[in-house]
Amino acid sequence: MKKQFIRTLVLCIMMQTMIAQSIENTMHNLMPWPQKIENKEGKFIIDSNFTIAIQQKQTNRLYKASTRFLRRLSGRTGVFFDVGFPDQERTSASLIIKVGRKGTIELSEDESYSLTTKSNGILLESETDIGAMRGLETLLQLVTATTDHFYIPGVKIEDAPRFPWRGLMIDVARHYQPIQVIKRNLDAMASVKLNVFHWHLTDDQGFRIECKSHPRLHQMSSDGQYYTHQEIKDVIEYAMDRGIRVIPEIDVPGHATAILTAYPELGSKDTTYQVERYAGIFDPTLDPTNEKTYKVLEDIFKEISALFPDPYIHIGGDENEGKHWDENPKISDFKKEHHFTNNHQLQAYFNSRIQRILRKLGKKMMGWEEIMTKDLDTSSIIHSWKGVNEGVKPRHSLLQAAKGGYHTVLSNGYYLDLMHNVSDHYLVDPIPDDIALTEGEKERILGGEIAMWGELITTLTIDSRIWPRAAAIAERLWSPKEVREVEHMKKRLAIISFRLEELGITHIKNQKVILRNIANGYTIDALSKLTKVCQPLKGYTRNKGGTEYKSYSPFTLFADACTTDAPDALKFDKMVNEYIVNPKNAIRPLEAILNSWVRNHDELEILNSKTPLVNELLDLSSALKELSLFFLRLLEQGGISKTNYNEFIKLIDIAKVPHADVEIVVNDSFIKLFEFMKKNEL
Amino acid sequence: MKKQFIRTLVLCIMMQTMIAQSIENTMHNLMPWPQKIENKEGKFIIDSNFTIAIQQKQTNRLYKASTRFLRRLSGRTGVFFDVGFPDQERTSASLIIKVGRKGTIELSEDESYSLTTKSNGILLESETDIGAMRGLETLLQLVTATTDHFYIPGVKIEDAPRFPWRGLMIDVARHYQPIQVIKRNLDAMASVKLNVFHWHLTDDQGFRIECKSHPRLHQMSSDGQYYTHQEIKDVIEYAMDRGIRVIPEIDVPGHATAILTAYPELGSKDTTYQVERYAGIFDPTLDPTNEKTYKVLEDIFKEISALFPDPYIHIGGDENEGKHWDENPKISDFKKEHHFTNNHQLQAYFNSRIQRILRKLGKKMMGWEEIMTKDLDTSSIIHSWKGVNEGVKPRHSLLQAAKGGYHTVLSNGYYLDLMHNVSDHYLVDPIPDDIALTEGEKERILGGEIAMWGELITTLTIDSRIWPRAAAIAERLWSPKEVREVEHMKKRLAIISFRLEELGITHIKNQKVILRNIANGYTIDALSKLTKVCQPLKGYTRNKGGTEYKSYSPFTLFADACTTDAPDALKFDKMVNEYIVNPKNAIRPLEAILNSWVRNHDELEILNSKTPLVNELLDLSSALKELSLFFLRLLEQGGISKTNYNEFIKLIDIAKVPHADVEIVVNDSFIKLFEFMKKNEL
Repeated sequence: MKKQFIRTLVLCIMMQTMIAQSIENTMHNLMPWPQKIENKEGKFIIDSNFTIAIQQKQTNRLYKASTRFLRRLSGRTGVFFDVGFPDQERTSASLIIKVGRKGTIELSEDESYSLTTKSNGILLESETDIGAMRGLETLLQLVTATTDHFYIPGVKIEDAPRFPWRGLMIDVARHYQPIQVIKRNLDAMASVKLNVFHWHLTDDQGFRIECKSHPRLHQMSSDGQYYTHQEIKDVIEYAMDRGIRVIPEIDVPGHATAILTAYPELGSKDTTYQVERYAGIFDPTLDPTNEKTYKVLEDIFKEISALFPDPYIHIGGDENEGKHWDENPKISDFKKEHHFTNNHQLQAYFNSRIQRILRKLGKKMMGWEEIMTKDLDTSSIIHSWKGVNEGVKPRHSLLQAAKGGYHTVLSNGYYLDLMHNVSDHYLVDPIPDDIALTEGEKERILGGEIAMWGELITTLTIDSRIWPRAAAIAERLWSPKEVREVEHMKKRLAIISFRLEELGITHIKNQKVILRNIANGYTIDALSKLTKVCQPLKGYTRNKGGTEYKSYSPFTLFADACTTDAPDALKFDKMVNEYIVNPKNAIRPLEAILNSWVRNHDELEILNSKTPLVNELLDLSSALKELSLFFLRLLEQGGISKTNYNEFIKLIDIAKVPHADVEIVVNDSFIKLFEFMKKNEL
Repeated sequence: MKKQFIRTLVLCIMMQTMIAQSIENTMHNLMPWPQKIENKEGKFIIDSNFTIAIQQKQTNRLYKASTRFLRRLSGRTGVFFDVGFPDQERTSASLIIKVGRKGTIELSEDESYSLTTKSNGILLESETDIGAMRGLETLLQLVTATTDHFYIPGVKIEDAPRFPWRGLMIDVARHYQPIQVIKRNLDAMASVKLNVFHWHLTDDQGFRIECKSHPRLHQMSSDGQYYTHQEIKDVIEYAMDRGIRVIPEIDVPGHATAILTAYPELGSKDTTYQVERYAGIFDPTLDPTNEKTYKVLEDIFKEISALFPDPYIHIGGDENEGKHWDENPKISDFKKEHHFTNNHQLQAYFNSRIQRILRKLGKKMMGWEEIMTKDLDTSSIIHSWKGVNEGVKPRHSLLQAAKGGYHTVLSNGYYLDLMHNVSDHYLVDPIPDDIALTEGEKERILGGEIAMWGELITTLTIDSRIWPRAAAIAERLWSPKEVREVEHMKKRLAIISFRLEELGITHIKNQKVILRNIANGYTIDALSKLTKVCQPLKGYTRNKGGTEYKSYSPFTLFADACTTDAPDALKFDKMVNEYIVNPKNAIRPLEAILNSWVRNHDELEILNSKTPLVNELLDLSSALKELSLFFLRLLEQGGISKTNYNEFIKLIDIAKVPHADVEIVVNDSFIKLFEFMKKNEL
């Protein structure tokens, strides 16, 4: 942790000079925002003579990263470069990279870099090649277009991360994700400087990793959808090439239906099991009193340890409600023998056994916050996930862990599957100002992890759930805590989001694929317009009780085409705000958008007459149409009469009802508009 | 070839009853069109009770294929199936599959099937599980929508392929294509019943397969972009699961720069070599007089033979111009010693040595037509590719081969990289009516192979070059030769094309990705409209001399967003034809489209003021605008005056000039319109 300390010290010194100016600077579409940035005179123009020289400590990784840099720069600008590869021999070049040493892909490695861009060249310097790769991403984000050319503006950037643990967890158990989905997301992670890929490999719905010692696991519990050792190695290499650590998770003792499908004899209940097709919290649990359980887990963790170079292994440990433990007299006897008065103690015993196994394998343990029991070794990392939904204060376990001497990582507030708008996540800080911790305790908060649970996502939709929101959280974890201006973030995010397509991220293009399927080949304009005011149901309301969707249900529905932060809802809200400030000037755009919603419903009705999948959306668009007509009338008549009150309540109540697992998200703006008109007797 | 004979006999008998009715039947969007189809009463409605029973001879492959069938059907219809997997135990089910035996993935295996759909159920019967998989694809193509539900119409289909070899070649040497690109194209191939994937693995620009015996090959000659043995096995398994054979190609003795980069001592010239970055025909050639050449090739082919189960290996053999042979006195001496009077004889010697190696490995040889020399063993397959461009009659080598006792496969006419419209390919028949061959000779024509050469394609654009045109060629190779009505094909192709998105094919969605990049985040409407009248330059004119584009040049350009069969050009031509028939009635739509082109140029100019990549397109849209204004004037003034003649010639000459590697493809329609107006003095 010495490195960690120095890092923080350096940051503190740097932050004194940079904060004010960095937040105000809105001209660069950088994300995460760097620790320190100064604008300089001049600009470097991108033309066919562009070259890269890696003058010091060229590593294979950096060579490959700068080659990818060249391809992306060329693809984006359309410039045909004469030289297609970086060169070590060059004494002069457009971009000179100087690196102190080869970095190690491990916690708290130096990721800092400095970048100076001038009209006659670009200099990228860093302690490690990992830092240089972070700088290359910043450089790509700096590329700017004028009318007739692309250039890099003159800047001087000093940059380093605020937190050393900036992760993205992907759950591939509920829905399997092919290797290329993982890879393109690793590319996107690297582009916003995330550095930990947490791979949730097993759960009730699947065991997604080849197990050579117990092949029934992947054979019986994956429907053929698992990663071979070779593929795992390939992904790890791909991640490490991008400066990203890979942490595997084998979730035990709960979330174990897939394991028990293959080995029912390890279960706490004497029964057979079948891979779960629903979502939720289930009873099947490993038997912690059975020595064979530890034998099998030792074999599994041994394989995992050999595959994954990172010292940390995530053992899950969450949501074990112990129902099957309570029902099993043998387990009750075991508890009595060991003087365990509750299941927490039994799980603590289980964890200590697992920890012993991991220690023998040279690994450290990470687990969801439930693993934090009295005797847990402080070498473990506590993964804090519970919050208001679970009846506790957000960060409760984070604080307890830090105080208890554990390192800890925050995920509460970063659950993308809850389908909250980006600002909800963006403002969640792992260490808010009012946190009651000593500096030493704060130091134990390593950072955060974005969680992408997989119940309702498929290969088609996963990117649209992760991106662009993950980029905003990445900024939270990298940038100075003072960088938290939401509107500024949103402006930059729009550009960052669009640029993710360069890396193959499908969040924009796959929406239309879904809509084309719904429209069954007819024009999608009306559907597309409707998506702009609709959002999938938040929280876990889309899949009540986990039983509406099976893992093989279709995820090609209108709800899957909708995303958070519905753009026209935001636009409309802005229009209403402007109307409230200045009714006369702002009335035209308001009328225009209301009229467009009226027309859109009519167009949807035409589409509905041609194809089956539109019908369930008509209630949404009809509610919007009726509200629009209502307000058009009010605007035209220039005021509200008492008789309008009830009418409005009726209309808004209809508009509040979700259909097809989505909801219209303009209602609050309509209410605001109505209240304003009422108050001002307009 | 006994099987082949019986197949043909069966086909002949079947064809007597079916042709007339099948071609006229336009209500089903089937492609390839089946050998025999009869419409029946009733329809089977898709609802949540849909189930599949594989009642006889369930193979693992068929189980997986029918599971995929369920996912696609559910995804397309949005229906939540209660049962997510096929079941062997069921006695009744919506779809019952009966299979005689497990098929072998080899040339001329039985792929026939029969399909009967009624209101109370669907029966799919076949000799092999491969036939059943072909039938499942037909069944998915039959899915039809009404206003409020999806159903399978009542039909009785008897189907079997016309040719046993229906291939797609993908060149991954010029531009590497990741595994997932290959896999999604295998899925698409299976959906149109193609059954051979020819993998062009090596060329001057890259050696794309791991070579364990000579690792310098992939290490030095792939820029790190090659397939491991594990990945190759994975792809082969994936292909075989879809009833597709995989034929590897190692191109020798020409197209060998990549091999010689690693092993210059095998070259015909005493020099060093570097992986080629340009496109074209190059001089580096293996030295056929050097025994070490055969030693290395034996090692390579030994590895290849162990990896690829198919009996055929493609050795390339094309375009060796022998320049380095002529320049090398040692090679000249060798020719004299062996009484070879020309390089063809020397290449024949080389081929015979390779054939000996392959025979030892239990493999048969396939090669491009240049391998057909006097003494070539008739177990070889001749791959016919030359045509008008190469100064010979199309099918010249195909005929020679068939007459000479060789089996042969046609690729001339199926080169997708030439960027011809779909109808040009569709009408190319391997065995046209006027072909001067005996029945026995015709029998040796195994089928055809679509060729997707890779000089100008990347992962982003490859799908849009292959699809949907490959589906039309697939029909040529499967369906009765009498099925050749272009307009009928185009109507079906539009639906087939759109449905390919279900398999992850990116031909539709990636166009907008490219345009968003060009527009640099601004609206793409004007660019999108321009793509609809533009096509990339045909033939090899886009990359004159192979030197305009390097392999690392950007392929994110406007030309990459354009495709063949520009939709608005076809639409406009139809409008002109209608105008010629009935000027009065057809004038309004004509004016509308002309006006839209005028406006579009103005919009493009606005976009051009914001971003650098639009400028080079303005000449195209401006030419279109000026022509449009010209004809709007003519239509308004209701006739042509002599002064218009020169004006038109000037305008059309401007419009004929390509820019940014694309051309406007409405010129012929404009000329037709002008000629008509002139003739009729309108």
